[in-house]
Amino acid sequence: MNWNISPVSTNRHQHIQQILDSKTKPVGSLGLIEQIAFQMSAIQQQDTIQISQPTCLVFAGDHGVSDEKVSLTNSDVTRMMVLNFLAGGSAINCFCDANGMALHVVDAGMRTEVHDPKLIQQRVAAGTRNLAHEAAMTTEQATQCLQLGRQLAHQFADKGSTVLAFGEMGIGNTTSAACIMSALLQMPAESCVGRGTGITDEQFQRKQAIVRQAVARLHGNTDPLAVIAEVGGFEIAQITGAILGAAEKGVTILIDGFIITAAAMLAVRLVPACRDYMIFAHCSGEQGHKTMLETLHATPLLQLGLRLGEGTGAAIAISLLRSAAEFFNHMASFESAGVTL
Amino acid sequence: MNWNISPVSTNRHQHIQQILDSKTKPVGSLGLIEQIAFQMSAIQQQDTIQISQPTCLVFAGDHGVSDEKVSLTNSDVTRMMVLNFLAGGSAINCFCDANGMALHVVDAGMRTEVHDPKLIQQRVAAGTRNLAHEAAMTTEQATQCLQLGRQLAHQFADKGSTVLAFGEMGIGNTTSAACIMSALLQMPAESCVGRGTGITDEQFQRKQAIVRQAVARLHGNTDPLAVIAEVGGFEIAQITGAILGAAEKGVTILIDGFIITAAAMLAVRLVPACRDYMIFAHCSGEQGHKTMLETLHATPLLQLGLRLGEGTGAAIAISLLRSAAEFFNHMASFESAGVTL
Repeated sequence: MNWNISPVSTNRHQHIQQILDSKTKPVGSLGLIEQIAFQMSAIQQQDTIQISQPTCLVFAGDHGVSDEKVSLTNSDVTRMMVLNFLAGGSAINCFCDANGMALHVVDAGMRTEVHDPKLIQQRVAAGTRNLAHEAAMTTEQATQCLQLGRQLAHQFADKGSTVLAFGEMGIGNTTSAACIMSALLQMPAESCVGRGTGITDEQFQRKQAIVRQAVARLHGNTDPLAVIAEVGGFEIAQITGAILGAAEKGVTILIDGFIITAAAMLAVRLVPACRDYMIFAHCSGEQGHKTMLETLHATPLLQLGLRLGEGTGAAIAISLLRSAAEFFNHMASFESAGVTL
Repeated sequence: MNWNISPVSTNRHQHIQQILDSKTKPVGSLGLIEQIAFQMSAIQQQDTIQISQPTCLVFAGDHGVSDEKVSLTNSDVTRMMVLNFLAGGSAINCFCDANGMALHVVDAGMRTEVHDPKLIQQRVAAGTRNLAHEAAMTTEQATQCLQLGRQLAHQFADKGSTVLAFGEMGIGNTTSAACIMSALLQMPAESCVGRGTGITDEQFQRKQAIVRQAVARLHGNTDPLAVIAEVGGFEIAQITGAILGAAEKGVTILIDGFIITAAAMLAVRLVPACRDYMIFAHCSGEQGHKTMLETLHATPLLQLGLRLGEGTGAAIAISLLRSAAEFFNHMASFESAGVTL
């Protein structure tokens, strides 16, 4: 696949810094808020930051590995939670509502089909195969996922979204994400496996063993497409494509927790320039997330102890982007306010 | 002065925890957002959290100690920044606008009077005396400040504000706040003095020496009123009164950075029960802030590297309170959503 992603130009960097430093405040005193403004102005190549139709796309998919009892629950819960999203009752609904973010749910490949006109149908298959024993999907399916994600991001960008966030739902997907981390960073399973939403010691050991075995089948191959096919998930692969699609359209990408960061790593390995479009919303409690963020040179905006996924961190963080935009667009300069420090 | 503050009842604690744990998510997986919801439901004694007319009150006052050149700027800047607030051009204006928070500015005792109908006039005097050499104010002035702050908080509570945040503007007020910290916690000046908005090494040394001398005049007296009179500021004292006034009315109090936390410490020393009403918005980069937060057993919501004051951290944090309220009020329970984990 060919991706058409331009690195964000550094031509305007000095100009943007001048705008920031002209504001009526000590230089740099708004910390990360200034960094958000800087990055968004650079991405949008404008002196006025636009946050239009910010949207969270939640991709749902099932994982064959959930049969290994590595999660608190089984894959029925993926379907039940998707129904909950569609009915407006989940955490991500509440956080999107509270923060003026639109929410759309995508079936990337759940075991059971859900018939609801609100659900975006991008089913690749009825769940992945069990990565504990075999490749999670074919290379064709992996490519198809990237393409589907890309197209969806393009649709939202074309309709006017300047910020896209991604969420996920898929019982077993922390195992897949841990495999992706282990494979891409060539790190041992014990550094990548977390406890997800709260498993037992026995499940924790089993999860590590599964990750170790699955990643071993790659024999050190770090090609992103091969990694996706061997240990990925349909939702993770579609999110990877959507991240790249968003970057192609110059959209600001708000990265949520552990799973979405694994997709972000895949996207950066496929096309490094997409990193320029990413803002990192939250550092979750999941082991390994901090390590992934470090390898991406990311400074997450929030540390709220969230460990739910769904895109919850991103939905909360959009308000910080709004504050940054409002500050950048409307705060007085020393000149305009007649203030001298 | 007599304060009428009830500790928040623990009677409903178990009931609130049941509501939180009935939501369609793993127990505790929303981290600090759950803690906010818990505290606000406990404060409001309701199963539905109300965030009505959240308001930031920015108190401005001048400090005699600013003549000692311990700040980057002089006290003219207090007036200029207040004009900037009134014109809508400062950081706190932008953050309040972006986050749906009302903003009011109070003259607690600026050197120069500003005539503007939008400015709430509560001038105690034209700036405090120079705490480097003498008591900043009289005990009568300190008491007057507490009373003025209290009355203002009552007014806003009576008009329907369920959340009040406080901000400050006053060149020299980090010196006053450092003195308050040193005096109340009986800690040496070097542990309490930060660099404010970015002073030189020489100014930093002078600031420490001034704090040491000023606090020495208290001879270990930790009585809050004595501390305010000796080393306080009119804006800090009025904020202390406003915090206590808000607690009297059962209003949730959003505490901002270093200066406001010093006022919060004074308030807690005067009436410990007011602590129950406080949510801590931000851990600033200012040395000593972390220590103060620890002594208050506070877990701040944000760490954004803000070091501007004005109430900026609190204005950004209000969106987290909204997310918490929306989640608590509207997220489905396992029962209502038909989800079983």
